[in-house]
Amino acid sequence: MSVNYEKLVSELKRGNHRSLARVISLIEDRSPIAGECIKLLFPDTGKAHIIGVTGAPGAGKSTLVDQLVLEIRKTDKKVAILAIDPSSPFSGGALLGDRIRMANSSSDSSVFIRSMATRGALGGIAPATAEAIYALDASGFDYVIVETVGVGQAEIEIVRTCDTCVVVMVPGMGDGVQALKAGILEISDIFVINKADRPEVNILKRDLLTMLSLVENLPWTPKVLETVATEGQGIDKLLSEVQRHRAWGLDSGALLERKKIFLKESLYRKIASDLVNEVKDFIENGSLLEDALTKLLNREKDIYTLSRELINQTRAKKKGIIKNDNP
Amino acid sequence: MSVNYEKLVSELKRGNHRSLARVISLIEDRSPIAGECIKLLFPDTGKAHIIGVTGAPGAGKSTLVDQLVLEIRKTDKKVAILAIDPSSPFSGGALLGDRIRMANSSSDSSVFIRSMATRGALGGIAPATAEAIYALDASGFDYVIVETVGVGQAEIEIVRTCDTCVVVMVPGMGDGVQALKAGILEISDIFVINKADRPEVNILKRDLLTMLSLVENLPWTPKVLETVATEGQGIDKLLSEVQRHRAWGLDSGALLERKKIFLKESLYRKIASDLVNEVKDFIENGSLLEDALTKLLNREKDIYTLSRELINQTRAKKKGIIKNDNP
Repeated sequence: MSVNYEKLVSELKRGNHRSLARVISLIEDRSPIAGECIKLLFPDTGKAHIIGVTGAPGAGKSTLVDQLVLEIRKTDKKVAILAIDPSSPFSGGALLGDRIRMANSSSDSSVFIRSMATRGALGGIAPATAEAIYALDASGFDYVIVETVGVGQAEIEIVRTCDTCVVVMVPGMGDGVQALKAGILEISDIFVINKADRPEVNILKRDLLTMLSLVENLPWTPKVLETVATEGQGIDKLLSEVQRHRAWGLDSGALLERKKIFLKESLYRKIASDLVNEVKDFIENGSLLEDALTKLLNREKDIYTLSRELINQTRAKKKGIIKNDNP
Repeated sequence: MSVNYEKLVSELKRGNHRSLARVISLIEDRSPIAGECIKLLFPDTGKAHIIGVTGAPGAGKSTLVDQLVLEIRKTDKKVAILAIDPSSPFSGGALLGDRIRMANSSSDSSVFIRSMATRGALGGIAPATAEAIYALDASGFDYVIVETVGVGQAEIEIVRTCDTCVVVMVPGMGDGVQALKAGILEISDIFVINKADRPEVNILKRDLLTMLSLVENLPWTPKVLETVATEGQGIDKLLSEVQRHRAWGLDSGALLERKKIFLKESLYRKIASDLVNEVKDFIENGSLLEDALTKLLNREKDIYTLSRELINQTRAKKKGIIKNDNP
């Protein structure tokens, strides 16, 4: 496949939505060309404010994000939404596809909306999400909002890599306790109680504040905000708080620290995938992999032993090739 | 640390709960000794029926699992519960700890209950869960029930590695649509509508059946069962269906295929972590890692380039060592 990725990336950097979408598709498909694109666009990243939005299904995240986009647009800033959708193990693709729901936002060329499928397996969601964020960042968006659909460990991993994590909850769903269960309390920079016109709002607020008071030595104490996203209520306060958190992060050095941790993880993940790919070619050529799987299924050998054997076999083989090449 | 892991594993194989708990703690702590234990106990695995139970927070999973355990005990089979808890990024540990809630089950020595923290980072939840399942399997349990707390990509990854996946829903929470969103529809072998005494039960059931009818070429068509776990209603039918699914899986070869896919992923994950550990020692010794992170933060170099450079530097260094050793 011949893709002129240099042209693609230079168009992306000039803010071309079509080229941006193309690059994100390459990232999503785990195309080797995606790597070439990332290399070229990486120097232009690091400017956007990345906001992660997560919360239980039914919390009204999409509506809240829509409203936040409208609020940001009042300040004339450019904003992109990246919606992380779960993949379908059957079809291998996203169930939702690019979302059309945000008709009012997407008629605006300063707004870009994209959903991305999260194909499981080796590598996981986090690397592809990070790369898509780089693409959006390099494309000149002032804000990138990353919205996750599920609430689980992988989703927590995603939002905790954002500059500001917003956790959305609703009253009367037993969310107070469940937040703690999902480990979400500790990654949150801002709590939003959405659908705050419901009667149980004070119970949830009290529960959240109590739980927050139990966590010791918090460098940043998350506020608990109330919104009614369907009415646009409380969105201005949310944006202010998002900006206040960013300012604090820059000022205190906490943001740099967070980015450093994330970059370290990303680097090791990349090293792991590079190294595995070298071995993979060799293992999947011939019957080596099938033999190993048969031994595993029959409980003749375990994963620890086989991993070591396959690595050693690959190396022995490669040394053999080098010897033959240099007689 | 000197652990007599041979003794530990032989006690585990004789069904000693204390040794079993110890081995799972080693796995949870990512201790190198865990690997030695897995090697020794792996030949004794592959007998237990692994049941995954997932669903949104508040669906009543814990109560349902409790009831399922009581139902299994009627047949005099041994059963273990492995509850996968999210980790706290702050404390690095599980928030729940080993659960005490199942007092009535745990007084029975044929029942074992254990929660496990899911420390994020490289490696993820899946490998540790798989290893804990091996430990429980080798310890002689007829059934291992893996219960996840969150619903997200990582949780889906976990339950889809089980022999039988049970997805628990409740009426009136908009769960019908949300199930589709979370990609859960496709991994489910059995749907349970819990709290089926609620009025909206028929709506959810109809939605689920409609969605199932849209998925083409299903080798196994999941049934939609109704339970009221708090009253013990419908649990007998659930156990029958779990057993029917297992029998079908064994008969059709589908179970073997599922196990094969999972073992392949596990093998590659192990190869990746083995290879990374080799490089890690070198990179983290000296200023190499700090230098790389600084370059990343300053956008001087990208992850793709740095990964390659660090791998090559490690290799060059190792060759140097070998040369010096063999002058």
